Amino acid sequence: MASGLEPIMTVADLRAFFAEAFPQALGGPSEETLIEEIGPGRVLIRRKVSDANLRPGGTVSGPTMMGLADHAMYAVILAHIGPVALAVTTNLNINFLRKPGLQDLLAEGRLLKLGKRLAVGEVTLFNEGEEDDPVAHVTSTYSIPPNR
Amino acid sequence: MASGLEPIMTVADLRAFFAEAFPQALGGPSEETLIEEIGPGRVLIRRKVSDANLRPGGTVSGPTMMGLADHAMYAVILAHIGPVALAVTTNLNINFLRKPGLQDLLAEGRLLKLGKRLAVGEVTLFNEGEEDDPVAHVTSTYSIPPNR
Amino acid sequence: MASGLEPIMTVADLRAFFAEAFPQALGGPSEETLIEEIGPGRVLIRRKVSDANLRPGGTVSGPTMMGLADHAMYAVILAHIGPVALAVTTNLNINFLRKPGLQDLLAEGRLLKLGKRLAVGEVTLFNEGEEDDPVAHVTSTYSIPPNR
Amino acid sequence: MASGLEPIMTVADLRAFFAEAFPQALGGPSEETLIEEIGPGRVLIRRKVSDANLRPGGTVSGPTMMGLADHAMYAVILAHIGPVALAVTTNLNINFLRKPGLQDLLAEGRLLKLGKRLAVGEVTLFNEGEEDDPVAHVTSTYSIPPNR
Repeated sequence: MASGLEPIMTVADLRAFFAEAFPQALGGPSEETLIEEIGPGRVLIRRKVSDANLRPGGTVSGPTMMGLADHAMYAVILAHIGPVALAVTTNLNINFLRKPGLQDLLAEGRLLKLGKRLAVGEVTLFNEGEEDDPVAHVTSTYSIPPNR
Repeated sequence: MASGLEPIMTVADLRAFFAEAFPQALGGPSEETLIEEIGPGRVLIRRKVSDANLRPGGTVSGPTMMGLADHAMYAVILAHIGPVALAVTTNLNINFLRKPGLQDLLAEGRLLKLGKRLAVGEVTLFNEGEEDDPVAHVTSTYSIPPNR
Repeated sequence: MASGLEPIMTVADLRAFFAEAFPQALGGPSEETLIEEIGPGRVLIRRKVSDANLRPGGTVSGPTMMGLADHAMYAVILAHIGPVALAVTTNLNINFLRKPGLQDLLAEGRLLKLGKRLAVGEVTLFNEGEEDDPVAHVTSTYSIPPNR
Repeated sequence: MASGLEPIMTVADLRAFFAEAFPQALGGPSEETLIEEIGPGRVLIRRKVSDANLRPGGTVSGPTMMGLADHAMYAVILAHIGPVALAVTTNLNINFLRKPGLQDLLAEGRLLKLGKRLAVGEVTLFNEGEEDDPVAHVTSTYSIPPNR
């Protein structure tokens, strides 16, 4: 994880930002996702599992996982640069590791680099209590608008 | 694109398979996506734009694009190996190239390799009539179950 | 491929640039790689196979293929923006598709997007005469310095 | 990192395997890379910096970093499944984070999943003493031959 990072938004700040700006950005009601922790270079987000994002066979769908990872990346960047609505994803790479269980999904996002123009991070997706056996791993790059 | 490929499912076959197996696999009603063409090593899928998958600012959300690309990859694989419900995505890498317009999104999936255990392909996402200026490009790998 | 692109460097320009700037950038003498064609949004590069880049079993090594793809991406960008030595790779994603043969390797690089700050492209690696059965597929992003 | 992993090869085992099997696999003499540590789900490899892998401007080349990361992935897999020369890279995704310094490069490889058919891991590349500011981050997938 990149060193020397200090968040400038609180959990409450981020929750308020997302509730207002992205009611449906993740293909589902925002009540389904909850920002739980913010730390230096890191955020933790919870995705409540509901019928709406289950696929036959009963696991969370790939797009739901990709959306959650993108949300975690966006959150960890905003937490450190402030609410820059124009930051956009330029790349997202996901490796699906194992079938998620029916518990809530947690996404831990960590910044690998926070530059002036680009932010790079990784996100680990895991079911509650199974952090050592992640269901998916994501790396992603965001482009940050100039003169923010 | 990999050579020597011949589809063994028709557009009607695939539409019926997805309507039955994945009513909500893409985080939205399946009527929103329509398989339009199947050819050697290739499929074309349409995603109708609706309020449900728009984000503020009016473009299609990243998760919607990732879900559409995953759908196109799955469709081009099934079209060539038959309905193998257990084929699973192992990797998806997406580069977001430009902001999509409000028209329908088309996804052209092409197989780069169709092996016994792994299938690799690329998907180009573009607004109707703008194939030369794609909004996103995806590469993805699927794991194919043995003894299919 | 992105539309409306016109190269501003010739094959001779690029050969001269690489011969001077990167005698060993690819982990081998530059005589081993040769820029063969430049077109709108596209370059073709040849990698002569030599003992120095063969691994036991006799195929080209992965790092050799990744270096060749990176070279093709850099070349197709420079061909369209001029010799900007400070353009740097920010991401490279490679899918290895099949074992290369002992013939020369060709790399066709195509621009998917050429923006002010970022360029995104794909590179297909194939043995001569086997363009339809590529040995590897690459997508890559370069960061372009401001005020070039 | 995946849980429940125990290495079955020692540092000496792996050094002997690579010295014999891949004298030039990384585009340079194997003396330049040294396996330093093996632990549960993890390896640490050192790449000595030499003139041969420096590019103008004096940093390690991208292909050198990609080769080192691939070496670390292969090493961490073999350390846990034994010397399976036929395990092959199917995907490698690298994010270049900052310009490496002239010190030796260290690569820490960690397994995210070790399945029967696929192994997925991540590799962090950093200059000695700067683990918190990595120069590059890699995720990679290997295909493992059946009936090993």
